[in-house]
Amino acid sequence: MNAITDTRGNSGQRERLRIRTGAFSGPTSGLAPGNVQANLAILPRDLAYDFLRFAQANPRPCPILAVSEPGDPRLPTLGADLDIRTDLPRYRVWRQGELVAEPTDIRDFWRDDLVVFAIGCSFSFEEALIEDGIEVRHIACGSNVPMYRTNIQCVPAGVFNGPLVVSMRPLKPADAIRAVQITTRFPSVHGAPVHIGLPSMIGIADINKPDYGDAVPVGPDELPVFWACGVTPQAVIAQVRPAFCITHAPGSMLITDLRNTSLAAL
Amino acid sequence: MNAITDTRGNSGQRERLRIRTGAFSGPTSGLAPGNVQANLAILPRDLAYDFLRFAQANPRPCPILAVSEPGDPRLPTLGADLDIRTDLPRYRVWRQGELVAEPTDIRDFWRDDLVVFAIGCSFSFEEALIEDGIEVRHIACGSNVPMYRTNIQCVPAGVFNGPLVVSMRPLKPADAIRAVQITTRFPSVHGAPVHIGLPSMIGIADINKPDYGDAVPVGPDELPVFWACGVTPQAVIAQVRPAFCITHAPGSMLITDLRNTSLAAL
Repeated sequence: MNAITDTRGNSGQRERLRIRTGAFSGPTSGLAPGNVQANLAILPRDLAYDFLRFAQANPRPCPILAVSEPGDPRLPTLGADLDIRTDLPRYRVWRQGELVAEPTDIRDFWRDDLVVFAIGCSFSFEEALIEDGIEVRHIACGSNVPMYRTNIQCVPAGVFNGPLVVSMRPLKPADAIRAVQITTRFPSVHGAPVHIGLPSMIGIADINKPDYGDAVPVGPDELPVFWACGVTPQAVIAQVRPAFCITHAPGSMLITDLRNTSLAAL
Repeated sequence: MNAITDTRGNSGQRERLRIRTGAFSGPTSGLAPGNVQANLAILPRDLAYDFLRFAQANPRPCPILAVSEPGDPRLPTLGADLDIRTDLPRYRVWRQGELVAEPTDIRDFWRDDLVVFAIGCSFSFEEALIEDGIEVRHIACGSNVPMYRTNIQCVPAGVFNGPLVVSMRPLKPADAIRAVQITTRFPSVHGAPVHIGLPSMIGIADINKPDYGDAVPVGPDELPVFWACGVTPQAVIAQVRPAFCITHAPGSMLITDLRNTSLAAL
């Protein structure tokens, strides 16, 4: 097997196996290039319906890639062998909104009433931007993407409500236009930007002080471009302080067998 | 015939007939709603090849909808009965780059070596923006679109070269993103914007002082959005000062039988 075959085909399955056996527990960025990585939210069945309604009403921040049967740790549409209890490098377990554990598998926490939600992640569209020759600043800087709470309220559903969280990538104007075109093709991983150029209009007072992640430099010849962010559903869940839930640990995503290109709507 | 049938079907042909017979000689804006209107450039055959190469190399400012046979005043793909010598309300006739006449038909100027170029016009994508609920400022103001010479050079071809001319429409950021999506669908009528938000980067010193057309107000919650403009080929032709050429008079466009929606690439 050579390096080229390594980056294709079942590289998602191979990475999951490495993680499942405990051989790897680091961040997933850069693993299985070209494969879709997903955010993870696991909720008890009694919250699952409201959460799914919230996602339906807010598809930009909360694009659902797959939902499990209650108590079933499999997501066969994302990977035939996938076991959500073991296949992420690290998880976060929450009780009443408090972080109680950061285990590398969740078999000991599993319950028959848990529903798994795999949620689209910006990694997929960032790959498409980079393929097109557009620099993604936070990747170039080796830092986390800067994220901001906005004054835009999500559509409430059941117990879930809260502000839209956005991620920001500074781009030259022509690249910003191209980025709108590219990310429009990927509605299941946040789609087109939600804002461009005038951060104060969406309640961002200081672009250099993100609410999550790291600040990145914005050049005088660049516009800040904002996309709906997968941190939104996490923040909304945290606000509800459910009796029990599990999420991925930051940067430790679910690696699937889907190819990013397969998510392109056009 | 009622008002509804009036705005559909062969309204392009009907308006051309009205113009051909001299019953109408005003601006074409608003006539035959939904039909493609086009810019006109008529050049002698000895310049036609260079001009077509220029258009091929610069499709954003110079999208060609149809080219006639030399000496043939018909463009059957744009209208079966179309006669370019009579079907525009007003023309401009140029000799050595000087405006020598503004006739309402050009039968007396016709020559066997003339080649007709019909060039896409922003009317088509503006209709799509308005259909989507986006205000087009200069239309709301009842004025001409503001246009600017930029510091972006077109790709030269033969004798033709010069700066890209752009039109500007101020839009709220979310509308600007939507406008990128909508106009991307219309590559044959200038397509996506070429710039957004930072006019000084493309050599525009004062947004309130357009080089052509009228200034329009830009709100503090708006970004100026710039599209390649059909004035570019006109300016490029003017610079060459050809011995003879004919263009449409400003605002007096060629009305075709094509529907704007038929130009959508997606």
